[in-house]
Amino acid sequence: MRFFSDNAASVCQPVLDAMAAANRADTAYDGDSLSRGLDDAFGGLFGTPVTVLWVATGTAANSLALAALCPPYGGVVCHRDAHIQNDECGAPEFFTHGAKLHLAEGDGAKLTPGSVTAVLDAIANDVHRVQPRALSITNATEYGRVYTPDEVAALGSLARARGLGFHMDGARFANAVAHLGCDPADLTWRAGVDVLSFGFTKNGGMSAEALVFFDRTRAEGVAERRKRAGHLLSKGRYLAAQIHALLADDLWIANGHAANRAATTLAEAAAGRLIHPVEANELFLRMTPDEAAALRAQGFEFYDWAAGEIRLVTSWDQPDAEVAALAAALRAL
Amino acid sequence: MRFFSDNAASVCQPVLDAMAAANRADTAYDGDSLSRGLDDAFGGLFGTPVTVLWVATGTAANSLALAALCPPYGGVVCHRDAHIQNDECGAPEFFTHGAKLHLAEGDGAKLTPGSVTAVLDAIANDVHRVQPRALSITNATEYGRVYTPDEVAALGSLARARGLGFHMDGARFANAVAHLGCDPADLTWRAGVDVLSFGFTKNGGMSAEALVFFDRTRAEGVAERRKRAGHLLSKGRYLAAQIHALLADDLWIANGHAANRAATTLAEAAAGRLIHPVEANELFLRMTPDEAAALRAQGFEFYDWAAGEIRLVTSWDQPDAEVAALAAALRAL
Amino acid sequence: MRFFSDNAASVCQPVLDAMAAANRADTAYDGDSLSRGLDDAFGGLFGTPVTVLWVATGTAANSLALAALCPPYGGVVCHRDAHIQNDECGAPEFFTHGAKLHLAEGDGAKLTPGSVTAVLDAIANDVHRVQPRALSITNATEYGRVYTPDEVAALGSLARARGLGFHMDGARFANAVAHLGCDPADLTWRAGVDVLSFGFTKNGGMSAEALVFFDRTRAEGVAERRKRAGHLLSKGRYLAAQIHALLADDLWIANGHAANRAATTLAEAAAGRLIHPVEANELFLRMTPDEAAALRAQGFEFYDWAAGEIRLVTSWDQPDAEVAALAAALRAL
Amino acid sequence: MRFFSDNAASVCQPVLDAMAAANRADTAYDGDSLSRGLDDAFGGLFGTPVTVLWVATGTAANSLALAALCPPYGGVVCHRDAHIQNDECGAPEFFTHGAKLHLAEGDGAKLTPGSVTAVLDAIANDVHRVQPRALSITNATEYGRVYTPDEVAALGSLARARGLGFHMDGARFANAVAHLGCDPADLTWRAGVDVLSFGFTKNGGMSAEALVFFDRTRAEGVAERRKRAGHLLSKGRYLAAQIHALLADDLWIANGHAANRAATTLAEAAAGRLIHPVEANELFLRMTPDEAAALRAQGFEFYDWAAGEIRLVTSWDQPDAEVAALAAALRAL
Repeated sequence: MRFFSDNAASVCQPVLDAMAAANRADTAYDGDSLSRGLDDAFGGLFGTPVTVLWVATGTAANSLALAALCPPYGGVVCHRDAHIQNDECGAPEFFTHGAKLHLAEGDGAKLTPGSVTAVLDAIANDVHRVQPRALSITNATEYGRVYTPDEVAALGSLARARGLGFHMDGARFANAVAHLGCDPADLTWRAGVDVLSFGFTKNGGMSAEALVFFDRTRAEGVAERRKRAGHLLSKGRYLAAQIHALLADDLWIANGHAANRAATTLAEAAAGRLIHPVEANELFLRMTPDEAAALRAQGFEFYDWAAGEIRLVTSWDQPDAEVAALAAALRAL
Repeated sequence: MRFFSDNAASVCQPVLDAMAAANRADTAYDGDSLSRGLDDAFGGLFGTPVTVLWVATGTAANSLALAALCPPYGGVVCHRDAHIQNDECGAPEFFTHGAKLHLAEGDGAKLTPGSVTAVLDAIANDVHRVQPRALSITNATEYGRVYTPDEVAALGSLARARGLGFHMDGARFANAVAHLGCDPADLTWRAGVDVLSFGFTKNGGMSAEALVFFDRTRAEGVAERRKRAGHLLSKGRYLAAQIHALLADDLWIANGHAANRAATTLAEAAAGRLIHPVEANELFLRMTPDEAAALRAQGFEFYDWAAGEIRLVTSWDQPDAEVAALAAALRAL
Repeated sequence: MRFFSDNAASVCQPVLDAMAAANRADTAYDGDSLSRGLDDAFGGLFGTPVTVLWVATGTAANSLALAALCPPYGGVVCHRDAHIQNDECGAPEFFTHGAKLHLAEGDGAKLTPGSVTAVLDAIANDVHRVQPRALSITNATEYGRVYTPDEVAALGSLARARGLGFHMDGARFANAVAHLGCDPADLTWRAGVDVLSFGFTKNGGMSAEALVFFDRTRAEGVAERRKRAGHLLSKGRYLAAQIHALLADDLWIANGHAANRAATTLAEAAAGRLIHPVEANELFLRMTPDEAAALRAQGFEFYDWAAGEIRLVTSWDQPDAEVAALAAALRAL
Repeated sequence: MRFFSDNAASVCQPVLDAMAAANRADTAYDGDSLSRGLDDAFGGLFGTPVTVLWVATGTAANSLALAALCPPYGGVVCHRDAHIQNDECGAPEFFTHGAKLHLAEGDGAKLTPGSVTAVLDAIANDVHRVQPRALSITNATEYGRVYTPDEVAALGSLARARGLGFHMDGARFANAVAHLGCDPADLTWRAGVDVLSFGFTKNGGMSAEALVFFDRTRAEGVAERRKRAGHLLSKGRYLAAQIHALLADDLWIANGHAANRAATTLAEAAAGRLIHPVEANELFLRMTPDEAAALRAQGFEFYDWAAGEIRLVTSWDQPDAEVAALAAALRAL
């Protein structure tokens, strides 16, 4: 029973159906009608005109966003535990041509205006230091925490005041929105976000992410960067189809809810072990090696995180029976 | 009726079936059994141990291959009309961190030992000139020509003698092998090829290419480069599934034959107009603007290539009726 | 007797004196008064406000200029025989992060609006092709030819019409101005040049070039790029001192004249052998290997250029006796 | 009275004399006899064969060294306060094409096997994390501390055990050697250092650093990287001359002693204020803003470092009277 990553989940049926429906010849690359319809689809969702590009991975989405916001000689402020810092093998540095990540602190991988300001103020404004040019946050965070619209807006104000482009890594944006029940616009452009990596792969898609530019002037050159990174798929309609299928009838939110619900059930079962509040679909639990071994012996798969800690991740397709079984096993420890 | 690119073709049913069959949770990235089975599958096909990585696009495959063969301060000899020079928005320069493409001549986008030697000998061996470190050819070429095993071997000998890594862009490798009826090994590693971009996307796949390292020592660091380029898809099993489906029962060759056959039919119908011999699935025809307009008026879609020239590309899924219709229309001009 | 390169010449006395005079502690980097005085010094020379940075080499000057004009995914149109293409080991690609050089034709390494247009028009305006973003010419050229103000202006108009930044590699700008006797402003910003690499090293300096931005908005980020390339010397005052010394009393033009005069003398002696008109301080001569050997036997050093061709370069410090001796030897062949 | 940086010091007379003596035409770039003599000169000094390249700045030396040791997808472990992290505007990232600096802790900017191991062990060995490939230390450190041969050797053993190339930033190597009185070989290659940035600019030179490869196989490609970074000066003999002049009669050590001696005098005068032990030519003192203002009012120039802290740097050419005056002023506070 898989609780190690939503990365490994299956693809939901409407997505598969939409891909099958796209299986006729159409114009190549992103000239097909599905791809061309993305700007409108996201414009409708967010209530503002946007420029959207599909890519196949979150790493590509994040890195293209950062390249759009930060010159090679600039820096990106992010959390010390950010995915862009730890889990992309230096992709941001590759796409930006060597920008530096300035690492900030914060509980649960959440930045605050205070922690960002501390980083900014420590960087002398001269040619010897890499000057920050962008701010990147992850929502939901790498520890399953969720920024509220107000928290994002506070960072957005700071970003604007300091001349920083503002990026949100939304690999689990659906989980955040499902948790908050808010208008996606309030969590993004109304809070100052310039570019969003809107993830679908972890949430019922196969391999599709939307790079959403709220500040459309920031999109200059990004189509060229995508092509040059080998990310302009020649049959892009199959990617666009995935995204449209998940946007339809707010399926993306429903899938986010499903994953979050499973996590909530597990959180209740392991309340005494929680290292971080559970707001999305990830749980970090205190657990001895013996306890972890006991769970594994019952067929549960998950990551050891740090000494005495494990990570559980639930997915949109997690069977109720598996969740119930794990909840029972956690209580029984 | 689409004759503008095999890039836009549909996905063949066995590929769709294999993707559907892969739709259960499995380990993420390339740790799943399908991905882990690629080395063996290609090792069997080529009769030699190989290291294989999937990627989603030919541009990514080519660029990763060149980055593996050429340092940032080196150069890659290729044809003036090579896809890597003209159609990838500088992806080779991006992935290699600024290597230079040294452009060579040759009919039908085919290099010869003579044309490559002319480029090599014109580059003084000092620190001021970018020193060639790799040779890249495309088979079938951008003009639908096919290198024979002997022709590849002659270039392979030259590459080895001059200390160049040898890459083959096989976006249409299937069409070349189908045309030649040869052992794929004779067209590649036995002829000195170090790395092959083995294309499946144009040949019935959705978005899947195999980067095949015959010289496995050249693969050092390529997994990291793939990850860092955002090309390590989290649900890689769907890519691997496509490739396995096309390798099974030599479906890839059958699909290549189908496309080539359509091209041959058209070539016979337009024999007097051919600019290049038709050996794969592309035709370049002399044609006046009025003639081109007349074809388009009948519903045929294709590219204008140069003044007085058009390009036709046939696909694995080209309906016989469309081919017959276009052949008739060409004869009728 | 050295006729192989002005690169190897000595440093003129006023430069050495100025460097010695700078040998007192002052603020580091480019904060010293000599460095801070460069904008004004060049502003006076060119009759327009400019932003100027010193660097130690022409390669650095050219590459920083191109990085300022061209994004990583763009292209630079230059002559096939340009120094930036052939003699900098890929420095433009390094500094621009992988921009492509689009090679154009022209006698004597001189571009024309026609030859540039031919290159531009062959590049389809889509995301697959690297789009030109800059034009770079060398004046005097790599073959010792000189663009007139009108010729530069014609290219400047084209650049503006096509949206290209316009760079002039002026490693031998002094030789060009000395030849033309024109106002430096007419040869540069009044003719549409955005950035000039103004060379002093070949013209009596030790290691000093000025990167002159006529379009000051183009200078954004260039100080950071210089620092990050290791070109912000900590004792920059010694570089600035060289430049001020050569600007004073138009010493740079006098030195240019001296080198040109020597070349003219040699050109008269070898008139029948000239491959290119001699307009600056370089001569390209038809010469058999035996003749070349005979000259070398008399102590003259120079480069073999191509089969049956040699290159001679004269310097600001070329002794009259050496020039006379070589002239006599050439006549005697 | 300048105590803000040894970067701003004057050039010592033997260096100026050597540069003047080099002022005759010779072969360009690094083909002259002075440049070609560097391998032997340093080979003699270190008692082992070495490959040496001059460059004009420490930033270039460090960055070329790191590019030689670390691929674009690798990482460099260094101290959080290292010059390569904080003071080079991302030059290491530029030259390495985006490698990541992994930041480690340690008093006085000194790493220990423990602090390095802590960083290494926190990085999971998978393709998602940037894998460390090099270790870089600064000796003397950015806080004026000195690693002993044993301390370097302990780090060298760790580097070898973990497969890391080992670089020493020796911008103030002279100060370290002068302090230790040790054989330079014991502080470098005998302790496992693969590449040394040997600084001369801060120590009586004008702009000259030697990049010394003890592991000569690591030097592959570095000449090309230097050229491509615009650091192959055409009149390299003036750089080589500086280095030879400082190596002669151990002038570099004498200059290091002179600077250290001045620092020692100041340290005795301000013993109660020292934040770090004074082992080289830098002092970090606790000081209120009022005290700092009082010193400045007496004509002493220095940097404010952090709240309540100042930095003093002494130079080889610091007049005794200035040192005595500052010592007195410090005592009088």
